[in-house]
Amino acid sequence: MDKVSLQSMLRSFLREDIAHGDLTSEPLFSSETMGSADLVARESFVIAGAEAVAAEVFRLQNPEISCMGAVKDGTMVSVGTCLLTVSGPVVDLLKAERVALNLLQHLSGIATLTSRFVEKTKLYPVRITDTRKTTPGLRMLEKYAVRAGGGYNHRFNLSDGVLIKDNHIAACGSLTGAVETLREKVPHTIKIEVETDTLDQVRECLDCGVDIIMLDNMDIETMKQAVAMVGDKALVEASGGVTLETVATIAATGVHIISVGALTHSAPSCDIGMDWKVC
Amino acid sequence: MDKVSLQSMLRSFLREDIAHGDLTSEPLFSSETMGSADLVARESFVIAGAEAVAAEVFRLQNPEISCMGAVKDGTMVSVGTCLLTVSGPVVDLLKAERVALNLLQHLSGIATLTSRFVEKTKLYPVRITDTRKTTPGLRMLEKYAVRAGGGYNHRFNLSDGVLIKDNHIAACGSLTGAVETLREKVPHTIKIEVETDTLDQVRECLDCGVDIIMLDNMDIETMKQAVAMVGDKALVEASGGVTLETVATIAATGVHIISVGALTHSAPSCDIGMDWKVC
Amino acid sequence: MDKVSLQSMLRSFLREDIAHGDLTSEPLFSSETMGSADLVARESFVIAGAEAVAAEVFRLQNPEISCMGAVKDGTMVSVGTCLLTVSGPVVDLLKAERVALNLLQHLSGIATLTSRFVEKTKLYPVRITDTRKTTPGLRMLEKYAVRAGGGYNHRFNLSDGVLIKDNHIAACGSLTGAVETLREKVPHTIKIEVETDTLDQVRECLDCGVDIIMLDNMDIETMKQAVAMVGDKALVEASGGVTLETVATIAATGVHIISVGALTHSAPSCDIGMDWKVC
Amino acid sequence: MDKVSLQSMLRSFLREDIAHGDLTSEPLFSSETMGSADLVARESFVIAGAEAVAAEVFRLQNPEISCMGAVKDGTMVSVGTCLLTVSGPVVDLLKAERVALNLLQHLSGIATLTSRFVEKTKLYPVRITDTRKTTPGLRMLEKYAVRAGGGYNHRFNLSDGVLIKDNHIAACGSLTGAVETLREKVPHTIKIEVETDTLDQVRECLDCGVDIIMLDNMDIETMKQAVAMVGDKALVEASGGVTLETVATIAATGVHIISVGALTHSAPSCDIGMDWKVC
Amino acid sequence: MDKVSLQSMLRSFLREDIAHGDLTSEPLFSSETMGSADLVARESFVIAGAEAVAAEVFRLQNPEISCMGAVKDGTMVSVGTCLLTVSGPVVDLLKAERVALNLLQHLSGIATLTSRFVEKTKLYPVRITDTRKTTPGLRMLEKYAVRAGGGYNHRFNLSDGVLIKDNHIAACGSLTGAVETLREKVPHTIKIEVETDTLDQVRECLDCGVDIIMLDNMDIETMKQAVAMVGDKALVEASGGVTLETVATIAATGVHIISVGALTHSAPSCDIGMDWKVC
Amino acid sequence: MDKVSLQSMLRSFLREDIAHGDLTSEPLFSSETMGSADLVARESFVIAGAEAVAAEVFRLQNPEISCMGAVKDGTMVSVGTCLLTVSGPVVDLLKAERVALNLLQHLSGIATLTSRFVEKTKLYPVRITDTRKTTPGLRMLEKYAVRAGGGYNHRFNLSDGVLIKDNHIAACGSLTGAVETLREKVPHTIKIEVETDTLDQVRECLDCGVDIIMLDNMDIETMKQAVAMVGDKALVEASGGVTLETVATIAATGVHIISVGALTHSAPSCDIGMDWKVC
Repeated sequence: MDKVSLQSMLRSFLREDIAHGDLTSEPLFSSETMGSADLVARESFVIAGAEAVAAEVFRLQNPEISCMGAVKDGTMVSVGTCLLTVSGPVVDLLKAERVALNLLQHLSGIATLTSRFVEKTKLYPVRITDTRKTTPGLRMLEKYAVRAGGGYNHRFNLSDGVLIKDNHIAACGSLTGAVETLREKVPHTIKIEVETDTLDQVRECLDCGVDIIMLDNMDIETMKQAVAMVGDKALVEASGGVTLETVATIAATGVHIISVGALTHSAPSCDIGMDWKVC
Repeated sequence: MDKVSLQSMLRSFLREDIAHGDLTSEPLFSSETMGSADLVARESFVIAGAEAVAAEVFRLQNPEISCMGAVKDGTMVSVGTCLLTVSGPVVDLLKAERVALNLLQHLSGIATLTSRFVEKTKLYPVRITDTRKTTPGLRMLEKYAVRAGGGYNHRFNLSDGVLIKDNHIAACGSLTGAVETLREKVPHTIKIEVETDTLDQVRECLDCGVDIIMLDNMDIETMKQAVAMVGDKALVEASGGVTLETVATIAATGVHIISVGALTHSAPSCDIGMDWKVC
Repeated sequence: MDKVSLQSMLRSFLREDIAHGDLTSEPLFSSETMGSADLVARESFVIAGAEAVAAEVFRLQNPEISCMGAVKDGTMVSVGTCLLTVSGPVVDLLKAERVALNLLQHLSGIATLTSRFVEKTKLYPVRITDTRKTTPGLRMLEKYAVRAGGGYNHRFNLSDGVLIKDNHIAACGSLTGAVETLREKVPHTIKIEVETDTLDQVRECLDCGVDIIMLDNMDIETMKQAVAMVGDKALVEASGGVTLETVATIAATGVHIISVGALTHSAPSCDIGMDWKVC
Repeated sequence: MDKVSLQSMLRSFLREDIAHGDLTSEPLFSSETMGSADLVARESFVIAGAEAVAAEVFRLQNPEISCMGAVKDGTMVSVGTCLLTVSGPVVDLLKAERVALNLLQHLSGIATLTSRFVEKTKLYPVRITDTRKTTPGLRMLEKYAVRAGGGYNHRFNLSDGVLIKDNHIAACGSLTGAVETLREKVPHTIKIEVETDTLDQVRECLDCGVDIIMLDNMDIETMKQAVAMVGDKALVEASGGVTLETVATIAATGVHIISVGALTHSAPSCDIGMDWKVC
Repeated sequence: MDKVSLQSMLRSFLREDIAHGDLTSEPLFSSETMGSADLVARESFVIAGAEAVAAEVFRLQNPEISCMGAVKDGTMVSVGTCLLTVSGPVVDLLKAERVALNLLQHLSGIATLTSRFVEKTKLYPVRITDTRKTTPGLRMLEKYAVRAGGGYNHRFNLSDGVLIKDNHIAACGSLTGAVETLREKVPHTIKIEVETDTLDQVRECLDCGVDIIMLDNMDIETMKQAVAMVGDKALVEASGGVTLETVATIAATGVHIISVGALTHSAPSCDIGMDWKVC
Repeated sequence: MDKVSLQSMLRSFLREDIAHGDLTSEPLFSSETMGSADLVARESFVIAGAEAVAAEVFRLQNPEISCMGAVKDGTMVSVGTCLLTVSGPVVDLLKAERVALNLLQHLSGIATLTSRFVEKTKLYPVRITDTRKTTPGLRMLEKYAVRAGGGYNHRFNLSDGVLIKDNHIAACGSLTGAVETLREKVPHTIKIEVETDTLDQVRECLDCGVDIIMLDNMDIETMKQAVAMVGDKALVEASGGVTLETVATIAATGVHIISVGALTHSAPSCDIGMDWKVC
């Protein structure tokens, strides 16, 4: 994650929430009134972004705010854990509070859900990855949270990986045709992945040297056969409607990667509060 | 919702996903290859944003894309319902697909969860409202989705409403002091809301003419007493950890407004696919 | 007023004036040449923005510039008063000078005109407020200057207040219809204001519980009747062509608010110079 | 004036006023409801920007709005003159109205004041010009309005003209030194102007071949001597506290240019209304 | 290449060149004066960007400009060839001319130089690729031009490919350590490339399964040995100071890829003029 | 060159190269690992931008990076010269490296080529200037590099100088007509330049008092006659296909300015490396 991009993003989030000013706090607090508060876990979860995101929001609102004691990404915290302590002008702490909390709650939600998928599959040498089903505008942050939760990232956008689907195959007349056309066109640094529905397609992928073979919504039995067929000739990725209930069974088939859209599109946020300290 | 802001936002979302180009589709499709696809519900849900958001994404990617048959916001759709039909250059349909779906799924998720809260309270004259606990960068869209689901919006940002909390009261020495200071400072167009924990505070709010009294995490019995005490002298808003299980009981206390953070921070996304038509 | 928005705005103003560089000063001064200057009042006026705006412009141009002795907003200054002392690299003082002065002169002009309206009505319990007739791009700053001059703000934009005018009434068939439709749709945090031309409309507003009744270009006698009719059942706002000559008479009618477009669209700027100190 | 820059600027103005939507108009008007309105002069003035600015605002809000009958820049209009007729979706006409009017009123105010200065000096071959004392963010538009009023522009920013003042002279030890240093450094396309206080300085300017000699706050008699001394060897510009009362006397001295800061920093706005047509 | 990003970029280029307007053309041409011109090759070269870039510049300046007859990317054109015909308002053709030509000349320069490298190696199954040594701000366009010239792209930025260099190896203690750490961390869609100086390093790369082995500034003999050692177990890329004189010899070693920084950082621009048609 | 504009530009360049993060360096280096490196000349050249540009890139990436020993612009450096020493977090040095080098190599290339043209004409009192044939997006920086190389700048954009060409003359019916129309319209601070092909046009320029006469692609003999004809009545600028071979002969004709497009559109970049120090 890079700071130049991050700061630009966080500034726009602050502007969304603060707009032309905080009508409640600005008239009540002088910019000299100092205060201190703890961001505290109200439930148990896996944290993502205390230092890299939440603290950065406070510092962007006012560089004089100091942020200490940030809990490390990926830590499982329990109720009452202090996640970050912020100190500085009260008016700026109040103005940054909501954006910092919204982000920290959202990212920790993603890290927590990811960690549950990871936990379910810990017996298998498999990666849980995200997808491009992220919240628009937040991809960099959400993919960061997936990593914090013990997961891995899939391609970041349409520019940094090839994924051949039905349409592309239809456009070329054949899977092999699509692979060959693209291999001839795209950078040598790019891997080629193909979405397959049948074992015949898996075999065709092997024949034309595809790097990653996605098994799209296949049943467990077919997945096993696909894994056996592929061996170490390509990476095998299971995808499509994976849940906490099904993920272990899928992992047991031997696939190398399981991509889960729900990590980023359906993780409920974690409950975090901001407790002010008596001065 | 305003188009000038919306379009700027959607363009940045497209750039996030497409980056410098679609490595898979651009080499395979000429810009002359036309196609058509349906966005189709894969489960039952309440829709938000088919015309105003998803169609706009496609048109921004390429003004030549035509969008037809958008289902009206707030409609409960069933599995298989076609939500929007898009036609135009295949390469642009593919490039806009993910952003359009991510938004439509997310917003429909919010509308659907909102509609469930609304349904639970339909016997009571109460409003279900959102909060500022929205996904950073998406507030305008998420608040739009809440309305589509039958809910109402709370204040949009720190500039368009006053909400006095503990800190503000502490800073002024008293609730009444905070209210009077702010009433003297803020525009006459702004309502003053106070977060209360006790009936004493509710009474103090009434004495100093607060417009909206928030009952923060009060138990049902205390809420009832607060409602009785307030009568029609102010709006009464219940807030704090409201769930689908508790919302009807809260509504039965007679509060006017129930604000629910979960509407925007924890709604799982709806499942929507894009089915291509045979040409 | 919030710094994140403010700084973005001030940076764009600096870029407008400096463009690709100062052709006169850059070749003549090394970045090590230090200097100091006073911003000095050349006439008597009420100041707005010495610390919050002018000093910020200098600091954004170069964080090494120090700004001291800023006169407090709302102070009536006399000819020769030093409003702000700036010290730092001469080349950066010269590059920021014009933007800082243009803003300080403009905002002080607004504060000064506002204070004259306030002075004229000091015997009455009435608010002088601005309108949306601000200079495009400067609304946040101009509304800040109105407050510095002792005035109050009206709604900030089309999103944070409802103001029902002729068209809206016509669209709904009746004033009451428009009010009821909007009350049903807009957030409970939003007040509803209606622009009225006749006493009949004022009465209709009372009947449907409007929060703020604007008397648009009414004669003094009708205003008095309107005020009597309304009592404390709503806020009454006089609007339309208010001048320094007429404002006291309008205030005497007992209206609660007088909104004056001229505060922001027609205030002449104040004369302020920058006097360099001999080193 | 260039459209690419202009449109970016106008879009940001629309966003400032509309924010996340028009709470009053959006719930009342469907996007299919069409209407038509005239922008009408409520007083007599010289117009600037009906087609280039006001109409552009409406078209940016919604390209389906048609704008007709725009009065030509620089025309002296009388009370009741229709300045522009706009037709299209009512909701978009209402959303763009305030920005369009604010700009048209402001720019026409500048054109009108400019035309009064021009009128006062019509017997003399002199140019009335603006200065850099413009409203931050609006320089391109305000300088356009000065031209519409019959005035001329001075340099646009610090990059497109050299103006040597006291500080620069002090930094180099002498006026001649500053001129020679800069002539050696700046592009050959750039004219060199020097601000002078005395006839000695004027003579020194002539000796070192300055292109434009500014007479800064000189008395009329000294100006006459300066003009006589310069002849056609340089352009002579009078500057400093020029008013409608003094401008003719200054023009009579024979100076070529009179620059007037008040054109852009103190022109009151013109009164323009928007009259809706009965459909 | 994607239009949303492209248009934003081209708009900023137009603003750089036109600034607040064209002082020469705007006063001389009404917006109704139409004209037509040909962009014509003044020398022989390989073209890139006539339709995708130059025509887009003209259309962005004014959507009424029509662009016809664009020569296809990658075509070798001879002196006098018409590359694109543009028709529309003369003032807008003049305002867009320089930006369109600057881009077309620059991109065609890159395509031309690329095609010369490609030509030199046409007997070998090798790819000529670019590097990250592009002109800041123009990477998407310059990489497009490389493709137009028959070359291929290397990774686009630091996010879409891993390239392990000395520092990274030093940081981990060993090449293998760096590879293993990164393979464990980065997305499975990302290939791992290592920069090597010696055959020992090449062997170590093979042992730990590196995807792409860069031979950095190796002599021809060592390259041959490296190629032999690698066989088809990885892609081999030669890099470092490759010139038109040396490229064929390098290609003859059997490497799969030759990356050439000069393609984008040192290609002289092509000479293209704009010839106006007599009307 | 102004910092506010510069920093905005450099930040966008960093974002282009780093995108969402450095996949190689971020996993390998903690943000606490410090390092130091020298930017070193790999060939002999004239440097531009070590302090003003390259160091600024590093500081923007991380303000904790310290930059020392920057070689002064315009210095001819030899192989092995250390141009700048940078110290700070290794991960940020690596992330900023490519952008800093790309810019420094490009700008030094321009300074070097400029200095060669300057050297060729050192016996003549002539200025070598750039043109508007710059790389889009980099004009401010490239014109800075031209000055560093001993050259001069021509007009910066279409707004800060008038240059009358064929089209403009045709539009007015005559050269004199165009000059008179523009002189009447443009600011008095703007010089008027005319592009001429014949001695008749040169004479016409003199008759109507043009400030700068461009001799466009004239042969040497005609240039000499033009220079003789003009004397000191205007500046004479030679333009069109000037090369290192022809520039001295052109300078010998006595023209005051020779403008060379190649300075900015065809300068090969200089070779600069970044050598890491052993810690």
